[in-house]
Amino acid sequence: MGNQCERMITDTEQQIIETVSRITENYRNSDILCLKNTKQLPTRREIISIIKDLRNVVFPGYFEEFSMSESYSEYYAGSKIIDIKQRIDKQLILALSYNDENGDINAIIEKADEISLNFVKKLPDIQQMLLKDVQAGFDGDPAAKSKEEIICCYPGFFAIYVYRLAHELYLSGVPFVPRIMTEYAHSRTGIDINPGATIGAYFFIDHGTGVVIGETTIIGDYVKIYQGVTLGALSTRSGQKLRDVKRHPTIKNNVTIYSGASVLGGETVIGEGTVIGGNAFITQSIPANAKVIVKNPEFKIKETKQSYEGFVWEI
Amino acid sequence: MGNQCERMITDTEQQIIETVSRITENYRNSDILCLKNTKQLPTRREIISIIKDLRNVVFPGYFEEFSMSESYSEYYAGSKIIDIKQRIDKQLILALSYNDENGDINAIIEKADEISLNFVKKLPDIQQMLLKDVQAGFDGDPAAKSKEEIICCYPGFFAIYVYRLAHELYLSGVPFVPRIMTEYAHSRTGIDINPGATIGAYFFIDHGTGVVIGETTIIGDYVKIYQGVTLGALSTRSGQKLRDVKRHPTIKNNVTIYSGASVLGGETVIGEGTVIGGNAFITQSIPANAKVIVKNPEFKIKETKQSYEGFVWEI
Amino acid sequence: MGNQCERMITDTEQQIIETVSRITENYRNSDILCLKNTKQLPTRREIISIIKDLRNVVFPGYFEEFSMSESYSEYYAGSKIIDIKQRIDKQLILALSYNDENGDINAIIEKADEISLNFVKKLPDIQQMLLKDVQAGFDGDPAAKSKEEIICCYPGFFAIYVYRLAHELYLSGVPFVPRIMTEYAHSRTGIDINPGATIGAYFFIDHGTGVVIGETTIIGDYVKIYQGVTLGALSTRSGQKLRDVKRHPTIKNNVTIYSGASVLGGETVIGEGTVIGGNAFITQSIPANAKVIVKNPEFKIKETKQSYEGFVWEI
Repeated sequence: MGNQCERMITDTEQQIIETVSRITENYRNSDILCLKNTKQLPTRREIISIIKDLRNVVFPGYFEEFSMSESYSEYYAGSKIIDIKQRIDKQLILALSYNDENGDINAIIEKADEISLNFVKKLPDIQQMLLKDVQAGFDGDPAAKSKEEIICCYPGFFAIYVYRLAHELYLSGVPFVPRIMTEYAHSRTGIDINPGATIGAYFFIDHGTGVVIGETTIIGDYVKIYQGVTLGALSTRSGQKLRDVKRHPTIKNNVTIYSGASVLGGETVIGEGTVIGGNAFITQSIPANAKVIVKNPEFKIKETKQSYEGFVWEI
Repeated sequence: MGNQCERMITDTEQQIIETVSRITENYRNSDILCLKNTKQLPTRREIISIIKDLRNVVFPGYFEEFSMSESYSEYYAGSKIIDIKQRIDKQLILALSYNDENGDINAIIEKADEISLNFVKKLPDIQQMLLKDVQAGFDGDPAAKSKEEIICCYPGFFAIYVYRLAHELYLSGVPFVPRIMTEYAHSRTGIDINPGATIGAYFFIDHGTGVVIGETTIIGDYVKIYQGVTLGALSTRSGQKLRDVKRHPTIKNNVTIYSGASVLGGETVIGEGTVIGGNAFITQSIPANAKVIVKNPEFKIKETKQSYEGFVWEI
Repeated sequence: MGNQCERMITDTEQQIIETVSRITENYRNSDILCLKNTKQLPTRREIISIIKDLRNVVFPGYFEEFSMSESYSEYYAGSKIIDIKQRIDKQLILALSYNDENGDINAIIEKADEISLNFVKKLPDIQQMLLKDVQAGFDGDPAAKSKEEIICCYPGFFAIYVYRLAHELYLSGVPFVPRIMTEYAHSRTGIDINPGATIGAYFFIDHGTGVVIGETTIIGDYVKIYQGVTLGALSTRSGQKLRDVKRHPTIKNNVTIYSGASVLGGETVIGEGTVIGGNAFITQSIPANAKVIVKNPEFKIKETKQSYEGFVWEI
C-alpha cells in the first residue's frame, strides 16, 4: 500500500488482476483443468493434418496440386506412409499416456508402435472398401456426374472415409483420437458417425446433414441413407450406466432409409432389402423385403381469403 | 476513338471494363455497399481468433501443444487475458462506431473499454458454468469416455462455450460481434444458438446438428437436448414488427427434449422435469413431470413381391 | 537374402514395404485412382479462395480489414476482377481437360476463356440479385438487427451467394467446379443447394442447417424457407437412369416453407402465396394461396408418478 509501485495500479488493472487470480483458482480447484501431471492431450490440429495427408495416399492427385507418374507411385506412397506412421505414433503416445497415469513409458511407446503399424497395414483394405463406397454413391445418385465427383465433392463420402480410419483405432482401444477424427468429419459435413459403429461395404450417405449413427449400430452391405437419418438409442436417461450396452439398431444388407427417418433401440433390426420411407419413426424391428411408408399425417389445407400479400413480407 | 491506345483494347478487355463500371455503379447506388463513411465492420477472422485464444485460457492445455506447470499458471492466464482484452476492445470500437455515425470517438472508446472489462471479469464465472456443462454432458451420455473427451471433442459443448461468451456481449448491447461469434459456432457444429437466448447451468446438447435456439428462448438448469431440436417462433411472417417480442418458448429445469422435436411459440412453457419425445411438434404449454410421446403415426408395411434386387442399385 | 543390406530390414519395415506395395497395386487396378493421363482435377483450395476474393468485390469492406474510398473503387474492383478471371480460367482448363481426354488444348483454353468472361460479365447482375436477397432476409427475420448483419453473419445468405456463382458455371456445362463450390457452402452452413437448381429473386433461408435443394428444383421470387426443409426427389432407386429427369418440385412465388418440411417429386407444384407448415411431408401439388397445417399427430401426455429426479442424471 505504501510503496510507489502500487499507487500506479489503475482500477482497471486491479480488476484484471483479481480476475486472473479467480481463473487460476478455478484451475486449482478442478480435476479436469489441471491436466493430469501436466500431461498433454492429443492435438486436434495434427490429427486433422494426418487425415488430410492420408487422403492423398489413398486418393493421390485428388486433393493436391500434383500429378503423379504411375512409375513413381511407390516412392510417393512409401515416403508419405513412413511420415504418417511416425506422426500417428506421437498422437497415440499422448492419448495412451494421458489415460495411463502410472504406465511405463516404454510399454506405452511399444503399444503405440504396434497399434500404428496395424493401422497402416489396414490402409490397402480401407482403400478397397472406399472404392466400393464410391461405386455405391455413383450407382445410387442420379445427380452424380462421375465417380471422381464423389471422391472430390461428396460430404457423405468424406465422412465415411474418416469413419473407416477412426474405426480401426477405436477397435485398438485408443482413447480420444478416434472421436477427434469423427468429430472433425462431423464438423465439416454435419454427419456424426460414432467411431464404434460397424459399417459394411458399399455404404452411401446422400446430402448427409443431420445424420447420426450411434456407437453400437451395426450396418450391413449395400446400405444407403439420406440426410437427417438417426440410428440412435431409445433413451439415454440412465447415462453412464448404459455404457457398453447395445443401444443402437442393426441394419441388414440392401436397406435404404430415406431422409429424416429415425430408427431407435438396441434390439431393433431392419430386415434385409427393406426400404424405410422419409420421416418414419421406427422403434421396433421390421421384416425383410418390406417397405415402410408413413401414412401421411392428415393435413388441413385452408384456402385463405386474404390476398397473398397478407402472407408475405412487404418489400 | 482516334488514338493509338484505344485501338489496342481487345473486345474482352472492353467487356471487362464495362463490367467493372457496372459493379462500381452498384456500389454507388446501394446504401449498404458504400459502407457508411468508409467505416469498417468488425473482422470475423479476428473474432474467431479471439474465441480460440480465450478457449486456451478457460481450458489450458486442451487445444495447444503446451503443458502448463501449475506454478506458472498466473503468468500464462494473465498475459493471455491482457492481450485478449485489447483485441476485443478494437472489435468493439469498430462495432460501436459503425452503428453510431455521429458518435464521439472518445465516448465510444470509453464505452468499449467498459464493456470489454466487464466481459473479462465475467470469465471466471463463465468458466465455472462450463465445468457444470461438462459434468452434465458426462453424466448424460453413455458414449462419453471421459470428461476430457467432452471438452476436446463434443460439438455441443463448443457451441455452448461460444454462446456463453457471446451472450455477455449481447447483454451489453454490442452489435455484430455476438452474432458473428455464434454463427462461427453454428458453422462448425450445425448448432444455431442466438446470443440473446437465456440458458441455465448444466446444459447439454448431444450430437447437435440442426439445433436452433431462438433469440428470446429461456432455458432453466439441467436441460438436455438432442440433434434437430428447434426452440422456435410460431410464425415470423410479421418480420421486423416482431422484433423484441418474446417469440420463443420457456423450458423449465430438468427437461429433456429428444431429437427432431420442435417447441414453438413465446407463450409455450415446458414444465419442470418433463420429457419431450423424438419428433414431437409442440405449440402449447406442457405441465411439469409429464412425458410427451408422439403416437406413432400409422405406417403401412408392404411386403414386396419383387425380389429385393429390384430395390437396390445394380452394382 | 544373402546380402548384408537385406539382413538389416526389420520386421516392421518389411510389413510397411508390403503395405506400400499393396496400396500402389490398388492404384494400378482402379480406373479412378490412376487419374486419367496423370491429369489433375480442379483444386478445392483455390476454388474456395476465389469464392472469398469474389465476395470482397461484391461486398467490399465486409470481409477485409480495409476501407475503400468510393473514388478509388474502380481501381479496386478492376484489379480484383482481372486477377480472379485468370484464376478461374486455370480451374476451368483443369476441369474441361479432365473430362475431354483427347480434346485439343487450344480449343479448351478458348472455351475456358469464353466461359470465364461470361461469368465475370454476370457479376453485376448477381450482385443486384444478392442485394434483393439481403432485403428479403431483413424483412423476413425479426432477429435481424440490420441488413449489414445479414451480409456478414447469415449462413443462409452465404449459401445463396455461393449458389448464385456456381449456378452460372453449371449453366455453362463446367464439370466439377460448380459442385465443389456449393459443397464448400454446404460444409460451412449445412445448406446443400445443388448448383443446377433454379432460384428466383428475394430468396431467404433462415437458420438453414439441413436444407437440401435438389438439382432440378425450380423456385420463384419471394420464397422463404427454414432449417431442415428438403426440396427433394420421391425416390432415387433407379440411380443414374434418372439423370436429367425433373425429379424435384416447383415452388411458385411468395411461398413460405417452415422448418422440417419436405416437398418431394418432380411433378409437385406449390402454388403461389401458399404457406407450408413445419414438418409437413408433401408429395402432391398444393393450390395457390393455401395454408398447409399438419394436424398435430396425437400425442399422449403421461403424468409420471415418479418424482422427476428419476428422470435426470444424478449430479
